[in-house]
Amino acid sequence: MMTGKSLGIHPERLYRDFEEMARQEGAREDGIDFVSIVTPNHAHYPIAKAFLENGINVVCDKPFTFNVEEAEGLACIAKTRDLLICVTYEYSGYPMVKHAREMIRRRDIGDIRVISAQYLQGWLATPLEATGQKQAAWRTDPKQAGSSNCVGDIGSHIENTVSYITGLKIRSICANLDIFGENRELDDNAEILVRYDNGASGVYHSSQVTIGHDNDLRVQVFGTKGSIEWVQENPNYLRVAHLGQPIKVLSRGESYIYPQAARLSRIPSGHPEGYFEAFANIYFVFIGTLLKKKAGQALCDEDLDFPGVEAGVTGVKFINKCVESSKKGSVWVSLD
Amino acid sequence: MMTGKSLGIHPERLYRDFEEMARQEGAREDGIDFVSIVTPNHAHYPIAKAFLENGINVVCDKPFTFNVEEAEGLACIAKTRDLLICVTYEYSGYPMVKHAREMIRRRDIGDIRVISAQYLQGWLATPLEATGQKQAAWRTDPKQAGSSNCVGDIGSHIENTVSYITGLKIRSICANLDIFGENRELDDNAEILVRYDNGASGVYHSSQVTIGHDNDLRVQVFGTKGSIEWVQENPNYLRVAHLGQPIKVLSRGESYIYPQAARLSRIPSGHPEGYFEAFANIYFVFIGTLLKKKAGQALCDEDLDFPGVEAGVTGVKFINKCVESSKKGSVWVSLD
Amino acid sequence: MMTGKSLGIHPERLYRDFEEMARQEGAREDGIDFVSIVTPNHAHYPIAKAFLENGINVVCDKPFTFNVEEAEGLACIAKTRDLLICVTYEYSGYPMVKHAREMIRRRDIGDIRVISAQYLQGWLATPLEATGQKQAAWRTDPKQAGSSNCVGDIGSHIENTVSYITGLKIRSICANLDIFGENRELDDNAEILVRYDNGASGVYHSSQVTIGHDNDLRVQVFGTKGSIEWVQENPNYLRVAHLGQPIKVLSRGESYIYPQAARLSRIPSGHPEGYFEAFANIYFVFIGTLLKKKAGQALCDEDLDFPGVEAGVTGVKFINKCVESSKKGSVWVSLD
Amino acid sequence: MMTGKSLGIHPERLYRDFEEMARQEGAREDGIDFVSIVTPNHAHYPIAKAFLENGINVVCDKPFTFNVEEAEGLACIAKTRDLLICVTYEYSGYPMVKHAREMIRRRDIGDIRVISAQYLQGWLATPLEATGQKQAAWRTDPKQAGSSNCVGDIGSHIENTVSYITGLKIRSICANLDIFGENRELDDNAEILVRYDNGASGVYHSSQVTIGHDNDLRVQVFGTKGSIEWVQENPNYLRVAHLGQPIKVLSRGESYIYPQAARLSRIPSGHPEGYFEAFANIYFVFIGTLLKKKAGQALCDEDLDFPGVEAGVTGVKFINKCVESSKKGSVWVSLD
Repeated sequence: MMTGKSLGIHPERLYRDFEEMARQEGAREDGIDFVSIVTPNHAHYPIAKAFLENGINVVCDKPFTFNVEEAEGLACIAKTRDLLICVTYEYSGYPMVKHAREMIRRRDIGDIRVISAQYLQGWLATPLEATGQKQAAWRTDPKQAGSSNCVGDIGSHIENTVSYITGLKIRSICANLDIFGENRELDDNAEILVRYDNGASGVYHSSQVTIGHDNDLRVQVFGTKGSIEWVQENPNYLRVAHLGQPIKVLSRGESYIYPQAARLSRIPSGHPEGYFEAFANIYFVFIGTLLKKKAGQALCDEDLDFPGVEAGVTGVKFINKCVESSKKGSVWVSLD
Repeated sequence: MMTGKSLGIHPERLYRDFEEMARQEGAREDGIDFVSIVTPNHAHYPIAKAFLENGINVVCDKPFTFNVEEAEGLACIAKTRDLLICVTYEYSGYPMVKHAREMIRRRDIGDIRVISAQYLQGWLATPLEATGQKQAAWRTDPKQAGSSNCVGDIGSHIENTVSYITGLKIRSICANLDIFGENRELDDNAEILVRYDNGASGVYHSSQVTIGHDNDLRVQVFGTKGSIEWVQENPNYLRVAHLGQPIKVLSRGESYIYPQAARLSRIPSGHPEGYFEAFANIYFVFIGTLLKKKAGQALCDEDLDFPGVEAGVTGVKFINKCVESSKKGSVWVSLD
Repeated sequence: MMTGKSLGIHPERLYRDFEEMARQEGAREDGIDFVSIVTPNHAHYPIAKAFLENGINVVCDKPFTFNVEEAEGLACIAKTRDLLICVTYEYSGYPMVKHAREMIRRRDIGDIRVISAQYLQGWLATPLEATGQKQAAWRTDPKQAGSSNCVGDIGSHIENTVSYITGLKIRSICANLDIFGENRELDDNAEILVRYDNGASGVYHSSQVTIGHDNDLRVQVFGTKGSIEWVQENPNYLRVAHLGQPIKVLSRGESYIYPQAARLSRIPSGHPEGYFEAFANIYFVFIGTLLKKKAGQALCDEDLDFPGVEAGVTGVKFINKCVESSKKGSVWVSLD
Repeated sequence: MMTGKSLGIHPERLYRDFEEMARQEGAREDGIDFVSIVTPNHAHYPIAKAFLENGINVVCDKPFTFNVEEAEGLACIAKTRDLLICVTYEYSGYPMVKHAREMIRRRDIGDIRVISAQYLQGWLATPLEATGQKQAAWRTDPKQAGSSNCVGDIGSHIENTVSYITGLKIRSICANLDIFGENRELDDNAEILVRYDNGASGVYHSSQVTIGHDNDLRVQVFGTKGSIEWVQENPNYLRVAHLGQPIKVLSRGESYIYPQAARLSRIPSGHPEGYFEAFANIYFVFIGTLLKKKAGQALCDEDLDFPGVEAGVTGVKFINKCVESSKKGSVWVSLD
């Protein structure tokens, strides 16, 4: 309530806890349209549940929940109550990721054969959680983070970004999860082999002990006619190749960019847009859709161009199956 | 014999086949010091055997042989006859690869935890062998190439380059080999999970269908104190990171380069050395060692800084185990 | 007034023109603290004058005015009335530019000898203004843009960014201005030789006809002990060299970043910050300073870390001297 | 003679000095076809003269001579005696430079408007010559190097590479030459404005005090339809832009490379070729041409695709005019 007060929120709408807030906002004529859940992972489920049950739409950090049952439970409530859920896998908000997705849809690089993706960080190369660093502390704590740290935090971003760009479903995975940090209980490195429903194969590498990499998410998709590469740390560009042609570097803001990406590009090419704009794009699409829905308008594909409840459920399944595979000796497990 | 004549070789030393050559050169007072075997894979073993048995040292393309028994058989002859074998894994000849190796030896990046390496090409994205292209034809033909195309040709370079740089032994692997090319009999893409004897884990990706990549071998080694990255297409530089410090880019030819690399650097920094020099370095070291040996001088570590018979044997084992793993459904197989 | 209404501004504070606004806001107890001038260049002077004369602080786009007399006139009013002026040379707002500035101050690269800087764009390679594109139309129109297009728009950014980073004063310049666009009245390309007060020499190149470059501002500063390079399109990094050492790449957000830059860094390294944050940083510092000033607190160096009225005056002088030099046949002209 | 003996040269052909060698080789039936002059600059003229006068073709390091009169004198002898001269500006030997040249010839980027080129090194940032380093000693000594060090050594490479790629003639230049090294007599930094015969303008920057750059020659050519950028330290690639299209990166060895470049490409794309191959290409073309000429065959354009005597003369003129311009206060001087 102190925080709320300092932010200038009306005293009538300062609440003691999320349950009270969900109940009272749900009961108000002018109640909030949606809630943003940005807590550590373990709190996602109860909060989301409370707001959905009170008829309030939900925007939630990823991973959506601890387990698939919870995720599907929330999906069910949302469906019954006709509410929207957005899970903020933020990398889907970058215009060049949207351009890549549209290229795949238009079959610009043919049939997908191979996917290689990595998300490398180095911030947990030492036992940072032992120093009391807050972010490190909860992410490496099974009670707050769930069954996985590295796959849960960043491996899941690989899963979602690839899935968002390619539309492929994962059929099965074979994962090796390591713990390198001293006295650490959860994984800080993961190598994962992947098989997709169309027969493509893939390899994911997520790590928090790879010194020299800050937030190095990169996705490479190889098709029968060409390939695409996107690198998060230089997000305004896309490397594209086509058989027998020079490599091409596409730049956000140019006239050849597809409308699905162009509509979320704010400033001319060469003026870097970054992480905040990617996040803003997810909210921008979600809010626009919410307003259309409230106005009783029909929603089209473009309106649903944000990571929804299905992405949330799939994400949780992916994390848990990686943990299961690794625990069983890095065997193949099905995601169906 | 025609070729030999056109090269100006003395008529007395023009031979009908390698057996005759091995026999007669082996018998001459002034016989050749060593033979270079640069044929398709299937011919390595009989040729190497013939020359070794006639007391002639051998330099051979990789992979050394089709199977481990052959490789070990050659190793045995070489040992018995006190002959040198060099298997030309050429990437070990680049000065910056040698610098990386020395950094690891000196523990500049601490204990190795994670290795990520790839070798991506796109030249077999289409069924090039069907057009009669010679190189494509023999590499995709089991009779000439052996049990693997992609792992045999380039996956084996990942294996050797990593092994050369790190000195780690592979304990077990789990490999997925794909065939994407129409009517192709051998693999053209491979993703491989790796476990090393020191507890490190790794992931290798070799592919010949990844359009947009020419000869993109890159090796990343992550240790407890830092990391190293080397990229073959820009081979005169090394990306090095240490905990909490700016990324460093080292340049061949500078004063901070270790002697093991500096001695094989020819021209000042910024003047690109390339593929030919890497090959030349392997021959340079091998020949120098051969001369010392002939002169009865003792050989030191530096003299043996070329890929030898042990690298050849390990390479064959790696290829065959990858094929075995994949055939069994991508299960883990031991390399011991 | 329509725009104001749509933005929800109180009807009492909707004004017909800037004069009315300046007068009435200046007269109110709760009048605005400052005005932001983001019009085409020719309107900067009258608007700034009106607000300053009514006791209102000014934030103004660059170039500050058409000529030095106007600029100095405004400086004079600001001084007399004790008002703050900020000229939004936005590139000084990037954290890594601030880090570079602090490195120079601390003499991390010794005495400056040579500066090389460029600002390359390609958007005016064709006569875009003839198509009615609004931005192109006013920038190439002497009545709205002043005596220069290319130097005025982007050459001036080179001048300011270099000046901000190095603290050097330009003694004289020799400029070649070209007009390549068909029927264009103002320059679209400029190469400029520069001499600084400390004996250093420099070369600037600004162009709007360099196809293949979007917004490619890069600044290289070479000193007796090292060098710095910053590239606007990849703004979260700084390339630093020191004699005999590996090249270093510094990343915004790391612990080794100087406080002057670190205090304006929002998110962890590897999460790209961009153009908007650079702009926001200028406003952030300016507003903080304004609040301190209003509170009667003493201002320190850090508070004045935004491009002020002096930067505005120097910028106008630089543009006009470049035009003068080129008109006289690209001769050297003094800036004193 | 000692050196010659150690190289196994026939005793009959060991000479005391170059005059004796020129005379005797010129008189022999089986005399040498050409001589390679790789001495410090001051010795080029007398040696070249001696050999030309004895009917022997000449390959000579750049700069060709100290002054234009000498250069033209040698050109005259060569013409009279029907001899070939090659001046080894090595960067014209890189395949991607040849591809760039052919692109310009075919007008792939339209009419040239602007050229920006630099050649940055850092090796003379300190007074290295005072330590006795041989290369530094003669390059900074007017008696051996001529009137310029930095322009003579590397600025001249910019001049030649640009001229080779574009075919443009320089009409006039305005140069600022600096001396930063303590007690140094010759320039170690130079910024040069350039005007070409077709109306294009350019800017060159050569420096040996720019710490952090090893051998950083880069050439950018901007035309009405596109642009080309080549960087010597990564010489197997060419960055090409066309109006409104994605940036393209061309790779040596691909099927889209023009024959003029492809014929001098040895190994597949992605296998780096470097400095030695560039040099070899110059010799390869020169020697092929010499053989054709000796065989009485007609020479075509392709045969003369090496830097000849005209390049040598122009190069000397460029250096001397830069020195003249700077001495006069960095004024414009004509090259006609």
